[in-house]
Amino acid sequence: MTFLERLAAAQSDSQSRLCVGLDPDPMRMPPHLAKLPAPEAVTAFCIEIIDATSDYACAFKTNLAFFEALGRAGMQAFEAVVDAVGSERLVIADAKRADIGNTARHYAAAFFDRMRCDAVTVSPYMGRDSLEPFLSYESRATFALVLTSNPGADDLQMLRANGRRIYEHAAEMAAAAGDGLPGTIGFVVGATRSEPLAQLRAAYPSVPFLVPGVGPQGGDAAEVVDAAGAGPLLVSASRSVIYASSGNDFAQAAREAAIELRTDLGPNS
Amino acid sequence: MTFLERLAAAQSDSQSRLCVGLDPDPMRMPPHLAKLPAPEAVTAFCIEIIDATSDYACAFKTNLAFFEALGRAGMQAFEAVVDAVGSERLVIADAKRADIGNTARHYAAAFFDRMRCDAVTVSPYMGRDSLEPFLSYESRATFALVLTSNPGADDLQMLRANGRRIYEHAAEMAAAAGDGLPGTIGFVVGATRSEPLAQLRAAYPSVPFLVPGVGPQGGDAAEVVDAAGAGPLLVSASRSVIYASSGNDFAQAAREAAIELRTDLGPNS
Repeated sequence: MTFLERLAAAQSDSQSRLCVGLDPDPMRMPPHLAKLPAPEAVTAFCIEIIDATSDYACAFKTNLAFFEALGRAGMQAFEAVVDAVGSERLVIADAKRADIGNTARHYAAAFFDRMRCDAVTVSPYMGRDSLEPFLSYESRATFALVLTSNPGADDLQMLRANGRRIYEHAAEMAAAAGDGLPGTIGFVVGATRSEPLAQLRAAYPSVPFLVPGVGPQGGDAAEVVDAAGAGPLLVSASRSVIYASSGNDFAQAAREAAIELRTDLGPNS
Repeated sequence: MTFLERLAAAQSDSQSRLCVGLDPDPMRMPPHLAKLPAPEAVTAFCIEIIDATSDYACAFKTNLAFFEALGRAGMQAFEAVVDAVGSERLVIADAKRADIGNTARHYAAAFFDRMRCDAVTVSPYMGRDSLEPFLSYESRATFALVLTSNPGADDLQMLRANGRRIYEHAAEMAAAAGDGLPGTIGFVVGATRSEPLAQLRAAYPSVPFLVPGVGPQGGDAAEVVDAAGAGPLLVSASRSVIYASSGNDFAQAAREAAIELRTDLGPNS
């Protein structure tokens, strides 16, 4: 099955376009987990979140930085988290890697073969040949950063070259790289960017969009859904779900936050 | 000590501006190591290379992709390699990460606190606030990708906005982010880019440049040295050193390649 087919199945089964972002910060563990060594706390925390929310989410976005900061044991935690998600939901490794072809092949092997993730995020700065090794995996998706929500997006992404902004060039380059196999390339577009999101959707009707930043980063669910139109869409929320409560009821609170977001994001189109 | 002070000490001690790139591909191990499980082979291979070349090199650039592709055991191998380099030479984690501030803090902790690397490479696409968390480590350096040697560099880096190319905007943004603490920010500039290298050096006389791609990627040592002028410079060679021989004499061959490159790169300025 292609990534788009598996996404459609997961969205149909969960009736949700929500992707829960797993950014497990050892400093924000609930009291009963805070006593454990960090890698164990993070593993238990993520698994409880997955158990509590996977009925209401189509995918989980695992933020590699939080696992890598724990060293070797963190990578063990990462593998346990991927296992816990299981095959009915998708795992997007939020890794934002970028490198020349020979090295990119090894990153692709790391995320797709070794860690068995369904998708990975990459940075487009090094251009088309840095994306291509990822795109040879026909059943996986590679989400290129196109336009992000942070203030620093103005530094390069919003600059204008040949009449178009750099993020538009990035989108065009990424789409061209993935053209051979629809669904192998996706775009990351920040949730605060509803106008560019609508323009990108008009230009790329069938490219899957991963839209992070609903919640504390300021994106509005209804606006995102409206802007992203009818094409494949995953909307990711991290802190607003996983830290909905700082207490031992965090999993229940995460479930409630996921249910609410699922409703806000509306049915699959 | 700052990164620049430690770099100067390592370059003085080794009389070398060479940085040996460790891209250990399990498919390219010499016969006597190819029999071992990949993580063990890679560890032994890298340690033999380090032992054979560290008299002739100021630093080692460890390519994370090759270690991550081996999973958890690969991260153990990475730690063993960092240990083997020791404190007299520098370790640059070639990671090319990029993310928003909250996540970048965790990457910085991963590379600087956890893995005890002296420097890390990052992608500038997400802008200034994605670099700043790395720059709070006063004794470490963060090398931003500015202009790379691969063909895909034309896709975004060479575009022209407001009269200057995107890589020039990236350099300016990175330099501004690191301005508070000289030596915390460096630039990655591909070895085939001698003209831009000279222009960047003129504009940024004291920024350390990491120049990869001498050897099979086509960069000429003498041209690089000439273009990079008198400022801090590390020139990285990977495959031309570590795979100088595919036989069991690989370490001796790497040593000879390192000695030759050290001579080609000339004395520290």
